[in-house]
Amino acid sequence: MSIKVGIIGATGYAGVELVRLLLGHPQAELAAVGSVSFEGKPISEVYPSLAGIFEAVLTSDEQVLEKSEVIFASLPHGLSEKYAASCAAQGKVFIDLGADFRLWAEEDYKQWYGLEYDDLALHQSAVYALPELYREQIKGKKILGNPGCYPTSIGLGLYPALKNELIDTNSIIIDSKSGVTGAGRGLSQTTHYPDCNEAFSPYKVAEHRHTPEIEQTLSDIAGEPVTVTFVPHLLPVNRGIVSTIYGALKKEVTLDEVHAVYTSTYAKEQFVRVCPIGGAANLKNVRMSNYCDVSLHLDERTRRLIVVSAIDNMGKGAAGQAIQNMNIVCGLPENTGLNSVPPCF
Amino acid sequence: MSIKVGIIGATGYAGVELVRLLLGHPQAELAAVGSVSFEGKPISEVYPSLAGIFEAVLTSDEQVLEKSEVIFASLPHGLSEKYAASCAAQGKVFIDLGADFRLWAEEDYKQWYGLEYDDLALHQSAVYALPELYREQIKGKKILGNPGCYPTSIGLGLYPALKNELIDTNSIIIDSKSGVTGAGRGLSQTTHYPDCNEAFSPYKVAEHRHTPEIEQTLSDIAGEPVTVTFVPHLLPVNRGIVSTIYGALKKEVTLDEVHAVYTSTYAKEQFVRVCPIGGAANLKNVRMSNYCDVSLHLDERTRRLIVVSAIDNMGKGAAGQAIQNMNIVCGLPENTGLNSVPPCF
Amino acid sequence: MSIKVGIIGATGYAGVELVRLLLGHPQAELAAVGSVSFEGKPISEVYPSLAGIFEAVLTSDEQVLEKSEVIFASLPHGLSEKYAASCAAQGKVFIDLGADFRLWAEEDYKQWYGLEYDDLALHQSAVYALPELYREQIKGKKILGNPGCYPTSIGLGLYPALKNELIDTNSIIIDSKSGVTGAGRGLSQTTHYPDCNEAFSPYKVAEHRHTPEIEQTLSDIAGEPVTVTFVPHLLPVNRGIVSTIYGALKKEVTLDEVHAVYTSTYAKEQFVRVCPIGGAANLKNVRMSNYCDVSLHLDERTRRLIVVSAIDNMGKGAAGQAIQNMNIVCGLPENTGLNSVPPCF
Amino acid sequence: MSIKVGIIGATGYAGVELVRLLLGHPQAELAAVGSVSFEGKPISEVYPSLAGIFEAVLTSDEQVLEKSEVIFASLPHGLSEKYAASCAAQGKVFIDLGADFRLWAEEDYKQWYGLEYDDLALHQSAVYALPELYREQIKGKKILGNPGCYPTSIGLGLYPALKNELIDTNSIIIDSKSGVTGAGRGLSQTTHYPDCNEAFSPYKVAEHRHTPEIEQTLSDIAGEPVTVTFVPHLLPVNRGIVSTIYGALKKEVTLDEVHAVYTSTYAKEQFVRVCPIGGAANLKNVRMSNYCDVSLHLDERTRRLIVVSAIDNMGKGAAGQAIQNMNIVCGLPENTGLNSVPPCF
Repeated sequence: MSIKVGIIGATGYAGVELVRLLLGHPQAELAAVGSVSFEGKPISEVYPSLAGIFEAVLTSDEQVLEKSEVIFASLPHGLSEKYAASCAAQGKVFIDLGADFRLWAEEDYKQWYGLEYDDLALHQSAVYALPELYREQIKGKKILGNPGCYPTSIGLGLYPALKNELIDTNSIIIDSKSGVTGAGRGLSQTTHYPDCNEAFSPYKVAEHRHTPEIEQTLSDIAGEPVTVTFVPHLLPVNRGIVSTIYGALKKEVTLDEVHAVYTSTYAKEQFVRVCPIGGAANLKNVRMSNYCDVSLHLDERTRRLIVVSAIDNMGKGAAGQAIQNMNIVCGLPENTGLNSVPPCF
Repeated sequence: MSIKVGIIGATGYAGVELVRLLLGHPQAELAAVGSVSFEGKPISEVYPSLAGIFEAVLTSDEQVLEKSEVIFASLPHGLSEKYAASCAAQGKVFIDLGADFRLWAEEDYKQWYGLEYDDLALHQSAVYALPELYREQIKGKKILGNPGCYPTSIGLGLYPALKNELIDTNSIIIDSKSGVTGAGRGLSQTTHYPDCNEAFSPYKVAEHRHTPEIEQTLSDIAGEPVTVTFVPHLLPVNRGIVSTIYGALKKEVTLDEVHAVYTSTYAKEQFVRVCPIGGAANLKNVRMSNYCDVSLHLDERTRRLIVVSAIDNMGKGAAGQAIQNMNIVCGLPENTGLNSVPPCF
Repeated sequence: MSIKVGIIGATGYAGVELVRLLLGHPQAELAAVGSVSFEGKPISEVYPSLAGIFEAVLTSDEQVLEKSEVIFASLPHGLSEKYAASCAAQGKVFIDLGADFRLWAEEDYKQWYGLEYDDLALHQSAVYALPELYREQIKGKKILGNPGCYPTSIGLGLYPALKNELIDTNSIIIDSKSGVTGAGRGLSQTTHYPDCNEAFSPYKVAEHRHTPEIEQTLSDIAGEPVTVTFVPHLLPVNRGIVSTIYGALKKEVTLDEVHAVYTSTYAKEQFVRVCPIGGAANLKNVRMSNYCDVSLHLDERTRRLIVVSAIDNMGKGAAGQAIQNMNIVCGLPENTGLNSVPPCF
Repeated sequence: MSIKVGIIGATGYAGVELVRLLLGHPQAELAAVGSVSFEGKPISEVYPSLAGIFEAVLTSDEQVLEKSEVIFASLPHGLSEKYAASCAAQGKVFIDLGADFRLWAEEDYKQWYGLEYDDLALHQSAVYALPELYREQIKGKKILGNPGCYPTSIGLGLYPALKNELIDTNSIIIDSKSGVTGAGRGLSQTTHYPDCNEAFSPYKVAEHRHTPEIEQTLSDIAGEPVTVTFVPHLLPVNRGIVSTIYGALKKEVTLDEVHAVYTSTYAKEQFVRVCPIGGAANLKNVRMSNYCDVSLHLDERTRRLIVVSAIDNMGKGAAGQAIQNMNIVCGLPENTGLNSVPPCF
């Protein structure tokens, strides 16, 4: 079986990471790669690392839609709806790596993105596609909202704790640090090398657009509304996110017991690795992979649980997870094309 | 006036930063630089950046004590007491950049460092030398415990908030990130370039030895015992610390009001800069300097205050502050030798 | 078919990169991984990136030899001969990533490494295994000297020019820059993060041990003795080598003609990519891969050819090439297990 | 004495480094800072590292000219002539950090920059201001062409060798590596963090505009036309240049003798440090300073001299040298304001 896949926005960072991974996917055939900025050029001209490997000419988005059965889109928010609708009409699968199909509540989308849903039914037919939490709901869907990078690291980091009511839902503070690819390929002063090398700073403090998505997932796990403090920081590395998450324990549990809850929750999940007690999740161990490493720590003195979650923002945080989702909707083993071993350095 | 100063442990990172700063200090004369590992060699052989500028031969610690009026010591914990006692006996000033004279309560020292105080009276004659908080107590003292890097960033970050009872003292969570020089010049796997480049991870989660020092300061400000959660991370940059500090507001205040409290508290402090509202403290702005930049953020949704504090771990976090302290005890203008402008890149 | 492979020195950087690549090799089975320093521990304890993927316990070298049909060794020089002899005696394949089987002339080995060959016949039965130059000689061999990282980048960079007598063999100057993994996993002051971050310097100027290996290859291509000036530099990146090579043109050729010579020479070589005229080889395009990118430049004013060659020092410069060699001696398609697409960032 | 100084282009990297250094210059008063892009804003808004230290409002270039006695200009080529003429007319000093007053031969300017000189006499009244070579000519001049960063590192690196006819002037090959600030503050894909971090590549191979400037200096020293091969590379660090320079020895000299020539040539030069034999120039030792470190190496096997020269591209390669030049023309001690000790990390 070979699935014809296409990418809209293939020259963005998430897009080209999709290209890289899909080239190694045994059941996918890259039928078309789209780019508004570079249409008509071979993608290997934009990314010379692809020279001799994949030199397809970048096409229009329309061609991507036409030639593909599964379409990945990596677009600024507000642009995905029309493509999703078109796919839905043709029975094609649309996996959106942008924000347009992540939020269940239109008011959240309005509040944080300033836009409305043109077609509410379309959104209701979509699924928020975090496989470890919503695997069953993903199956059979045609429109998938692929989770954001921060929300993925946080949702996976807190799922066992909230599911098992270990922490107070009012106490959650999330301090995240993201590599610079998270800011995209577009130029900006903050991502100019001399500005972000040997630098470190938070940004969009307590006002990052991933906040409602994080809260949507945590609330759904907890079964009650969860509001969090979320502060992202720009980290001078290319790839990777580390989220350090703090929550007040509301049960008398030991670290061993918390660890047991996490390991049993994720016992069957290939892509979530719970570090042994004493270890600390490090983004270096998950780069170029679809893994999420989670380490657990207990501050005995304040009875706070500290969860550290590390992913590759472009892997499990974007392209890797999108392929995992494709595998689910296409009925393939979930790890197909995602088994490359993360490099040690 | 020229003060004869000496450094014990001059080839460690804090020690050699002291050398660099003292060479530019108009009232200090570097009388002796000591090193156990490199005794007998010129310091410029260990640090070629000093070639042609300062080529003094490294001596024994005893010689440093003998030749100097003010002695800076940068030693592993447990080694400073005898030098301090010797200085005290001779009426010399001893500024300890290590941990031995920072903790008021011997039980804290026992618990976190595993050692006892040999001479309690000596410790009682010492001062915890964070100038912005304890300026008056520092004057006239002979033994100074120079604060740790993390505690400096945190004490300065929280001082106005706690002094003015803006936040709940039980709610404080501190997520700190330090450049690699914080781990010292000694070799280790975690500071081996390929291990820490393109990496990020916490370490000593909720068990770092700076915790009791942080709590001592915060408790003293608050006038009640403060217990915090403190998680340090290793940041792939040479210098700098950013502490992101979270606390629950216990008053109905606006961000403007909090900002006004901070700016008025630090109005006369040259070395603490409160960022304008909307700005974020960034370690790039304080590198190679004695500044502490503090930015203020309010999470309206959870009513948490977020304070971001940035220092150079080797400047305000070690050598710069030590010189500031020397200036205080020697009756010099506090900024003498500390006015170099931080580089923009 | 499944080949039982083993690695001696599996926790060194080249060794663990072999592990990573061999785990993705469809015809290899990792039968044993050896380590003197960590024997008895799971390799995933040394490299947590392997957790959940490969947790084999590290064994003695003897066990590696016993359990494997193909043995890779990554050892300090002087230690490989006995293992090679043992393999030869048992008809096993021994691929040495160290220096012991690279030099044809024992006097070179004596001069540069200070050691003699114990068993000259053994060395004579070995092959210097740079596939693009010596593919036919590699086939059927049991002892392979896997080329050094610098010599690989340089041999591939100059092969077409020397083969076609484009440049004066007395004029060759090679300025190479290597990422820090090239210095290995062992700790040293020069690879301590604060010492090599934001730093750049040459080392072993005109006296690096790869010099005789480089000259052996270039002399063999040219059919006459070639002596070069070779200066390596330490580059603050994890992986990758760029060699900038200068040679005086001895023919009236245009850049187009030189380019045509290179593209035709390498027309059938998957792993050597000649950049289009105007492009420049960049290590970022070959990281994590077995590619060697070569760009060509002509200084019209001085009539010098400038060849820039980029490889991943741990890929084509070590582990990748070793697997390419295994594929050759085992009769597999040469690119088996080596088709992962280099990441774009 | 206090000299009123002004900066045209103060928000570029060279401009703001001038600001930083001039703020520490005891005889300079920063009278005006100009910026086309940020006119009307305080400079500390563009560079928050200056907050509380220097918050002057950026003005028009005209105001800078009006208010200052010494004007530094850091502008794209082709824009300096009119300002220089205006200064000359008013007897003010004009120090140009751009390329417009560096080349003696108008045909070089035409060929490499595509422009003509509007006022040849103006150019003839200017001086190429590399102090160690042209100190006497600089004195009394009003228009100074401050050397480029690469040419500074190379001119100082080769001066003793060429002056003493140690090397063949036809044999010179220069392989330079520059930190990213060399590309300026303007945004570009190549200086986007994820593009240049963990990357290394040459650029403008054998066609960089500094080539004629390099050759002008070398020819002048040698007393005969010198043509060189010059290849710059982009180095993933913020600051610093290392030039590795190759030349064929034309005399029977030993390394000791070459070293003696260099040390005696530079015996009275504070800002050029000749490394001891066995040492290697490293940009980490000269960052944030006006030093040029030079190390000497001899390839006995090929009889080539290898000179490695390291400067801070923004210090000795731009702003530091400009201030050194100001000191010369203003009759101040040459090192005034330039004595800060380079940091060890």
